Amino acid sequence: MSLDFNTLEEFSTLLAAAPTEDGAARQAARDRNEQLTKPPGALGRLEDLAIWYGAWRGTGRPAITSPQVIVFAGNHGVAARGVSAFPPEVTMQMVANFEHGGAAVNQLSKVFGARMDVHALDLDRPTADFTASPAMDEAEVIAALRCGWEAVAAGTDLLVTGEMGIGNTTSAAAIAMALFGGAAGDWTGRGTGVDDAGLDIKTQVVAEGVARHAGVSGLEALRCLGGREIAAMAGAIARARVLRIPVILDGFICSAAAACLENAVPGALDHCVAGHVSAEPGHSKVLNKIGKDPLLALGMRLGEGSGAALAMGIIKGAVACHSGMATFAEAGVSEG
Amino acid sequence: MSLDFNTLEEFSTLLAAAPTEDGAARQAARDRNEQLTKPPGALGRLEDLAIWYGAWRGTGRPAITSPQVIVFAGNHGVAARGVSAFPPEVTMQMVANFEHGGAAVNQLSKVFGARMDVHALDLDRPTADFTASPAMDEAEVIAALRCGWEAVAAGTDLLVTGEMGIGNTTSAAAIAMALFGGAAGDWTGRGTGVDDAGLDIKTQVVAEGVARHAGVSGLEALRCLGGREIAAMAGAIARARVLRIPVILDGFICSAAAACLENAVPGALDHCVAGHVSAEPGHSKVLNKIGKDPLLALGMRLGEGSGAALAMGIIKGAVACHSGMATFAEAGVSEG
Repeated sequence: MSLDFNTLEEFSTLLAAAPTEDGAARQAARDRNEQLTKPPGALGRLEDLAIWYGAWRGTGRPAITSPQVIVFAGNHGVAARGVSAFPPEVTMQMVANFEHGGAAVNQLSKVFGARMDVHALDLDRPTADFTASPAMDEAEVIAALRCGWEAVAAGTDLLVTGEMGIGNTTSAAAIAMALFGGAAGDWTGRGTGVDDAGLDIKTQVVAEGVARHAGVSGLEALRCLGGREIAAMAGAIARARVLRIPVILDGFICSAAAACLENAVPGALDHCVAGHVSAEPGHSKVLNKIGKDPLLALGMRLGEGSGAALAMGIIKGAVACHSGMATFAEAGVSEG
Repeated sequence: MSLDFNTLEEFSTLLAAAPTEDGAARQAARDRNEQLTKPPGALGRLEDLAIWYGAWRGTGRPAITSPQVIVFAGNHGVAARGVSAFPPEVTMQMVANFEHGGAAVNQLSKVFGARMDVHALDLDRPTADFTASPAMDEAEVIAALRCGWEAVAAGTDLLVTGEMGIGNTTSAAAIAMALFGGAAGDWTGRGTGVDDAGLDIKTQVVAEGVARHAGVSGLEALRCLGGREIAAMAGAIARARVLRIPVILDGFICSAAAACLENAVPGALDHCVAGHVSAEPGHSKVLNKIGKDPLLALGMRLGEGSGAALAMGIIKGAVACHSGMATFAEAGVSEG
């Protein structure tokens, strides 16, 4: 099977054919977990995380040595509708900030020993205003998916995808509404901090966009209502699935990107955990729809991959306990 | 003022005279936070944590370079009553496991770059069964407090205290009931995993102990119902307060130890955050009583300091963002 794609259908076929977790590795990880020097279940969710991680990596005693954080940036036609508290040029300014190491996600990547890459996608060419036409044509969304697909480094063993794009919570809200129904107000929040008037405009834009593309789902929702950075995240998450690299999902926008994959190919996010739940009100609803229980709930709403980058510490801790702890036999500790 | 104590009253006086946070540093940290390249409030609780950390460390731009995890171990007379799923010799076996690097808290300390120390307190001399007499006389509790007091390393800038002691959730439940009232069943859980019959015995032992020492509070509750490792944690947390070292509280037992300090000297835990909420059912109630909102809720119930050690990643992330991020002016990013 070719590991490339030129249409959304080919992308979807690749994703559907991607490997599942390794059942033997899951069993080996479970067996090891039962022998570790602690009461059964006493590490709570860390135990499940380590077993899940091992199952995807194909080993009962995994290690995390090469985490990668990728930040994608894109500009949005709908930004011209006044949906954000910040002007569109901030997308490019923040890309420079990422490149110079000055953003939150840079610090978090450093704390948790992750490589960080930044990909700016055609910032001088915003997507079309999705209330008037599809945000992207097929060639554009394929190019963005491929940017994400190719951004995953060889050897990466834990992936975080983040984003920057003024206007992109509007896009994420429209995707969520298209995939999951409900009213525009259910999915639209203040993003970087719009005021009440801005929130009204934003909600109206989301409603208009979804009405304009009534009935879209899966990857068509991504194409018609998404953005280049959102599609790139989807491409990277899909590539990680093909390579059996566990992924930590970030906030509302990342989760909306991921939800398009799950909507297109049920089970496509089995290699993903939710790093956190954002303060952006639509996020907990999207997580509920894709069946993910967040690791952290700290009121973050920055994007950039920051919540997921912080959650790398949880996964690293879980795997370190699992693979580094002594067994009862090794330590000469009496079992209960 | 002497920084030593020979009685509980002297200890209490030292604690009451300990410094508060640095108001000017808090303001400097707040001012810096407002200039960082992110929408206001977008890092959620990380912003509060960084400001709190800076206020205690006396700087608007703090760094964490020397975190320390200290695990204290003690044995409990009430263990003979059959309150635990594990035999008492496991305390000493686990101390060896800590010393050889095989326990969960060893792995977590390593992941987050913390020094880890282990102090075993008179393991061959369990405290008295608190249903029959005070667990410790004053000289014993002072010795245990001093062990903790002296265990805090020079230069430590973030402290986690953990414990190991078969029977110590029974002791923690009795302390919580003595301090906060309610019924024994409100505070008694399965600990390392007692069955229903064991839970009944444990609940009965807690009720008997609190009835035996009716009316004790603060440091007297620690003496009469506590254990050596519990008192040592209290001593370390108090010393950290004197030295303005921020502390991450661990689970039920650590929080019960801390609650004795708060009960004796209101405000004594202002330099502490709750690292996590344990699956042990009394823990969330204790946190509520001492006014602490946990950073993590991952169903952990291991003790050893493991939940707090995991939360070091959150504090490190918060401080790294605060002190490492560029300001709007430095990065040339437009403000909203």
